[in-house]
Amino acid sequence: MSSDVVVGSRVAVVGGGVVGLSAAWLAASSGFAVTLVDPCPARGGASWVAGGMLAPVTEAWPGEEAVLALGSDSLARWPDFAARLRADSGADPGLDEAGTLVVAVDGADAEVLRVLADHLAGLGRAVRSLTGRELRRLEPGLGPSVRCGLDVPGDLAVDNRALLTALLAACERRGVRFDRRRVASVDTGRVHLDDGSTVDTDVVVVCAGAWSGSLHPALAGLIRPVKGEILRLRARRGALPPPSRTVRALVEGRPAYLVPRRDGLVLGATQYEAGFDADVTVGGVRDLLRDAERVMPGLAEYALDEAVTGFRAGSPDNLPLIGEVAPGVLVAAGHHRNGLLLAPVTAEAVLAMLRGDVPPESARVADPARLAAVSR
Amino acid sequence: MSSDVVVGSRVAVVGGGVVGLSAAWLAASSGFAVTLVDPCPARGGASWVAGGMLAPVTEAWPGEEAVLALGSDSLARWPDFAARLRADSGADPGLDEAGTLVVAVDGADAEVLRVLADHLAGLGRAVRSLTGRELRRLEPGLGPSVRCGLDVPGDLAVDNRALLTALLAACERRGVRFDRRRVASVDTGRVHLDDGSTVDTDVVVVCAGAWSGSLHPALAGLIRPVKGEILRLRARRGALPPPSRTVRALVEGRPAYLVPRRDGLVLGATQYEAGFDADVTVGGVRDLLRDAERVMPGLAEYALDEAVTGFRAGSPDNLPLIGEVAPGVLVAAGHHRNGLLLAPVTAEAVLAMLRGDVPPESARVADPARLAAVSR
Repeated sequence: MSSDVVVGSRVAVVGGGVVGLSAAWLAASSGFAVTLVDPCPARGGASWVAGGMLAPVTEAWPGEEAVLALGSDSLARWPDFAARLRADSGADPGLDEAGTLVVAVDGADAEVLRVLADHLAGLGRAVRSLTGRELRRLEPGLGPSVRCGLDVPGDLAVDNRALLTALLAACERRGVRFDRRRVASVDTGRVHLDDGSTVDTDVVVVCAGAWSGSLHPALAGLIRPVKGEILRLRARRGALPPPSRTVRALVEGRPAYLVPRRDGLVLGATQYEAGFDADVTVGGVRDLLRDAERVMPGLAEYALDEAVTGFRAGSPDNLPLIGEVAPGVLVAAGHHRNGLLLAPVTAEAVLAMLRGDVPPESARVADPARLAAVSR
Repeated sequence: MSSDVVVGSRVAVVGGGVVGLSAAWLAASSGFAVTLVDPCPARGGASWVAGGMLAPVTEAWPGEEAVLALGSDSLARWPDFAARLRADSGADPGLDEAGTLVVAVDGADAEVLRVLADHLAGLGRAVRSLTGRELRRLEPGLGPSVRCGLDVPGDLAVDNRALLTALLAACERRGVRFDRRRVASVDTGRVHLDDGSTVDTDVVVVCAGAWSGSLHPALAGLIRPVKGEILRLRARRGALPPPSRTVRALVEGRPAYLVPRRDGLVLGATQYEAGFDADVTVGGVRDLLRDAERVMPGLAEYALDEAVTGFRAGSPDNLPLIGEVAPGVLVAAGHHRNGLLLAPVTAEAVLAMLRGDVPPESARVADPARLAAVSR
């Protein structure tokens, strides 16, 4: 993390996804004069289409221990973050503490779960292995193809749209000013807009997700879009209810997740290195539906309300970039699959940097200086 | 067909789908003062979501000879109808004369095609049988699962949205007045609106598709919604082009059709007797995509741009209702799967009745008096 102190009274947050809104909310709550610049706050980016898993443990994999540690720290902050947001916004931020199951369909999928379980045990995070029968006792909607799984009660979920709605309300209550113009680039002390005009500021915080890489030369090439297709399903009258827990599945090697919502679930997600290609493809939807029906056959009776594309903000090492990249220019982006999970720790880190305080220890790994291409 | 003459100078057409717009256009062209009442002309109903097949022959089935005769008569009128519409609207109505293939996947599907071919031969309408190899020579995108088929060059298609756009323009040019309020019911000399007000008229023509049954007591129980789900696919860069002909398929007993468009194709359609249930279901989309990929595997690379529901206007005998049902009250509805096909003959029949002329002979079978429940 940079040792520079970037304190300033005027803060321009570029990007109104979960990271930008969270940072803007905390900064405004601490007395900064915050302008959030985004043509479509809450709605425009990956946060709006996300599934909403807060799941560092079931995302864990050998070699990605730093991601797990950062995610675990942020997850620990989530209940307080949600309680404070609820109090500040007057709205339910949609935190769901029912936990997560990871399930496997074929033998190779089961082997992957065994590797994950062993890895977690080695880290002192034992998880409970379950047979298909035990899984179906917990979640009767799981189909006969589900052969085994893991119970990870600590991995949670959030209704991302409820969260974003609450964050918008909290920002408004805390006096965040919204500028709905499109940003072309940022610079020390300035946000340059598409329309040729400029917003002057003391500090800029780039929270533009997959679009961040094009906004400042120091970020060029460090953040790339990782396309994902995601579906929203609604339980129709007479259909089986959605599972009570989040269900992550491996289906013949393909990952899928079913994140319950009040009236249905979010089904995701494909993953392509395809640039900003916004098309929902036949093959992607076919795979998602087929795999989800393998996991929960009753989904056939659900309504398919939405099929959309989002762009995760990928970084070279799957860790976000949180820190200063030029004088008065902070970045908080590159959260890849974990923007919702990492929002609390990211917003705290940004706030600490704005105040000249020490950011959370766990966020040290996200210092953009680790990436050689960053010019300081 | 009623022998009553319903001539009047003011005509209120209820419903802005293909039938209502066509009738309004012809009536206005003949000097009637036409008001078309629909909250969302062109866009609101089955015509907008339809595939656009003009395909009486490939729809034929033993026992439905009257449907075939009516459809064939209307199809024969289509080229003139389209030419006249193009001249009157200044827009391309999207008639596609490339023809139709019907293809079979499994043995039972092939047997159904054989029954269809024999039936057509018995009616003197021989069609050419093709092997899978011959089919793939005509349409290289057809997959290896396609085992045989029929070539029906006379069955055509129309880009339904181009057609509706042209009809709207022609109606406007011919002075049709559009009233964008919602209709509650109709009566001799009057259209009652949802807002409690009334449109006075000499003649009412009910062209409200699946919603027609609730508008006049004489139609109650005669027209029901037949739900269908339909998808719009777009050829992405690098994907195989859409087929050049319409491809109708039987895939393990399930019918599917691929109707080419300039930039992709329309893929339809499920069929449910489910009332006005507007949900697109997981099972419906899964079946359509799976079956379409069996027929044309390259569709995996297409974009899925739209998944919507429409309501065909079903009648007890699969024939439409075209005629007078009460003094000054005409109906032109119940066209089921054939609204676009039957628009020309239906509009001609309505115009003839408005003028006191003899309607087309083929439309005699559509006289609503054939259905016992009609009270005259």
